[in-house]
Amino acid sequence: MLRTLYKISEAQAELQRICDRIHTDQVVEQEATVREILNAIRQSGDEALLHYTAKFDEQTLTPQTLRISGAEIDTAYQQVSGDLLQAIRLACKNVKAFHQQRLPKNWVTFEENGVVLGKRYTPVANAGIYVPGGRASYPSTVIMNAIPAQVAGVERLVMVTPTPKGHTNPAVLVAAQEAGVQEIYRVGGAQAIGALAYGTETIPKVDVISGPGNVYVTLAKKQVYGTVGIDSLAGPSEVLIIADHTANPVHVAADLLAQAEHDPMAAAILLTTDSKLADKVVVEVDRQLAGHPRQILTEKAIAHYGIAIVVESLEEAAQLSNQFAPEHLELEVEDPWALLEKITQAGAIFLGHDTPEAVGDYLAGPNHTLPTSGAARYASPLSTETFMKHSSLIQYSKSALLNVAGAIDALTNAEGLPSHGDSVRLRVEE
Amino acid sequence: MLRTLYKISEAQAELQRICDRIHTDQVVEQEATVREILNAIRQSGDEALLHYTAKFDEQTLTPQTLRISGAEIDTAYQQVSGDLLQAIRLACKNVKAFHQQRLPKNWVTFEENGVVLGKRYTPVANAGIYVPGGRASYPSTVIMNAIPAQVAGVERLVMVTPTPKGHTNPAVLVAAQEAGVQEIYRVGGAQAIGALAYGTETIPKVDVISGPGNVYVTLAKKQVYGTVGIDSLAGPSEVLIIADHTANPVHVAADLLAQAEHDPMAAAILLTTDSKLADKVVVEVDRQLAGHPRQILTEKAIAHYGIAIVVESLEEAAQLSNQFAPEHLELEVEDPWALLEKITQAGAIFLGHDTPEAVGDYLAGPNHTLPTSGAARYASPLSTETFMKHSSLIQYSKSALLNVAGAIDALTNAEGLPSHGDSVRLRVEE
Repeated sequence: MLRTLYKISEAQAELQRICDRIHTDQVVEQEATVREILNAIRQSGDEALLHYTAKFDEQTLTPQTLRISGAEIDTAYQQVSGDLLQAIRLACKNVKAFHQQRLPKNWVTFEENGVVLGKRYTPVANAGIYVPGGRASYPSTVIMNAIPAQVAGVERLVMVTPTPKGHTNPAVLVAAQEAGVQEIYRVGGAQAIGALAYGTETIPKVDVISGPGNVYVTLAKKQVYGTVGIDSLAGPSEVLIIADHTANPVHVAADLLAQAEHDPMAAAILLTTDSKLADKVVVEVDRQLAGHPRQILTEKAIAHYGIAIVVESLEEAAQLSNQFAPEHLELEVEDPWALLEKITQAGAIFLGHDTPEAVGDYLAGPNHTLPTSGAARYASPLSTETFMKHSSLIQYSKSALLNVAGAIDALTNAEGLPSHGDSVRLRVEE
Repeated sequence: MLRTLYKISEAQAELQRICDRIHTDQVVEQEATVREILNAIRQSGDEALLHYTAKFDEQTLTPQTLRISGAEIDTAYQQVSGDLLQAIRLACKNVKAFHQQRLPKNWVTFEENGVVLGKRYTPVANAGIYVPGGRASYPSTVIMNAIPAQVAGVERLVMVTPTPKGHTNPAVLVAAQEAGVQEIYRVGGAQAIGALAYGTETIPKVDVISGPGNVYVTLAKKQVYGTVGIDSLAGPSEVLIIADHTANPVHVAADLLAQAEHDPMAAAILLTTDSKLADKVVVEVDRQLAGHPRQILTEKAIAHYGIAIVVESLEEAAQLSNQFAPEHLELEVEDPWALLEKITQAGAIFLGHDTPEAVGDYLAGPNHTLPTSGAARYASPLSTETFMKHSSLIQYSKSALLNVAGAIDALTNAEGLPSHGDSVRLRVEE
């Protein structure tokens, strides 16, 4: 049952509690295990990888069977319906088109005195994508991670995905093939992150790792961050819906449940100016939950992290939403573009009554890998930039260097770095 | 004494050893201490902050004296020479001009069938800058972190810097004032990172933390990453110089020493096609080291992480450099722009014989906060984007939603997420 709050102070406290429900700096229990696994992979490569795969995924593999073969991918195509294949292709097409927009461009400026400055963008050479197995094994995860890497121009695109007891997900394999993944390894957990970060005899290391996973995967990504780049530390998913009297309670309820059905820790929040709408949504959530195939899990999420808040005004709703910095924000109001002007932090914003989050989750084009747990205060959706980096370019002429020699001298003296000064002085004093 | 290597395999092994000299995933010793400090700050706020400041900085403060006052900043201006003030202002001006180039712009696309997609960029609301005290307390650090935040449009810009035994650095305070820092607190170490990440009674929390520090600071940044954003995990500094027969050995030696004088763990690497140049640089490094004010420290860096490598060709040099992915790369060759085409990973690239790294360290404009320890494989210089984030925008019309309803249905069925399907179906079936 979705609870309804009417007091702003209570609402703020509840939103803070929900936002703080999990942060990696407070998860210590699994950290030692993760460190042990990562160290073993670094030291023993394939041997350790096979050991942990046998232990956690109940699968006996050899270095030769770590990689999923072309024949297995062919079989996966036969197991996937024509409708699903077409849907995967449509999603790939739209996600590609969106990520190709406004790619960063190299630039150089020339000044009269011989100063040249610029930026030069290059793709990372090797990227690794993590795709969960089990309950959260989704083809859309593959598409949303692989396509931006492909668009960025990554040379070598690797995927790891656990196949517990040998169970593979054909839709995931097909999506990988369609989205340009070149190598797939049937490993998961912290051990797969270790293999991507440090390399093993069979799996060469990568430069960037992206993709969601359970707490072990997330902690492993955090530990290897710095040795490789990572996309983000993904927490449980969340939606915040701002709705006014023009919203349809049946649709709002479905949108809340579409978030809650992900995970017992998913958050589903409604902020509305219309208390009658809130009442109807509460009833409708219960109605749609009855007989839901994931009823128990979804009810848990709604009970612990579901909430309807009745606010005084859309301004107040925008303020609360900005404080929460939701991963997904739906604006189911009369004039969503006017309300958008008041929004300062959110991962993806869905405008109007006919834009359920699901359209963005699957195929509108923008990425579905978004900052969670308040990270939208500082972080952005996964993008081609996740798989690119730039270098600064600087060229000075001798006369340009002479112009700034005095200033550099003052600064190197203040910082006590004499060779910094020498490196300029020796050039201009000739 | 700078060692010279002639064999490519030895050179590769040495470069790997230097690149791997420190990675945060292998620093475990100080981690428990850092965690304890961060937990104390989260739980006890100011009280813990004052405790650790007394313990590590030998300074007895109160909540009222944590913040550096306007009067202290006025005093700092009186302690700084006119030349230094002018140099700081020139650096601020150039860094600002560079970072204002090509700021990300909002965009929206409209399709005929009623699909609207876009990206909307916003600055982070609160940023915190860490500036070391002691040996590495530099005004240039302030400028290189504060200006990009200011250009990004950050509302509240805070700086923390330790003042051990009450020792403040007037140039750092002046640089902070000139670069738009609004609040300065005299705290440092992991406790200052904790204060910025979690907030205390006196120091409100921020959204992003940037700036370099010792291993405690770096580990603290890594631990709080996810709760706040961070710029990067900075390691010891490094330069790689590619030089041919046209390079001046005196200049090359000064440039190597300008890196080595930072830190006993700094790395200074020369790749040259000219073995005579290598010999001369070795001699010249020794000559310039004699009587160097930081001789012992600099000699240590040169002995452990200094190396000259004689290569067959500039192609080979570019390949070795790309494998190392240097923080700073100098191209002291006849045609640096031709060689640039072969470079795929480096933080900042200095082209030609008259562009010593120092010009970029201080005032050319590009940022001096750069990826270290091989991080240029995946990471970029600090930029305005460090202090900005974007949101995706999606709006669908009912007819556009109808067009994709079948595809979404196929995907939600494959992923077993019925409410995702309902959220679309309920809208289009009306």
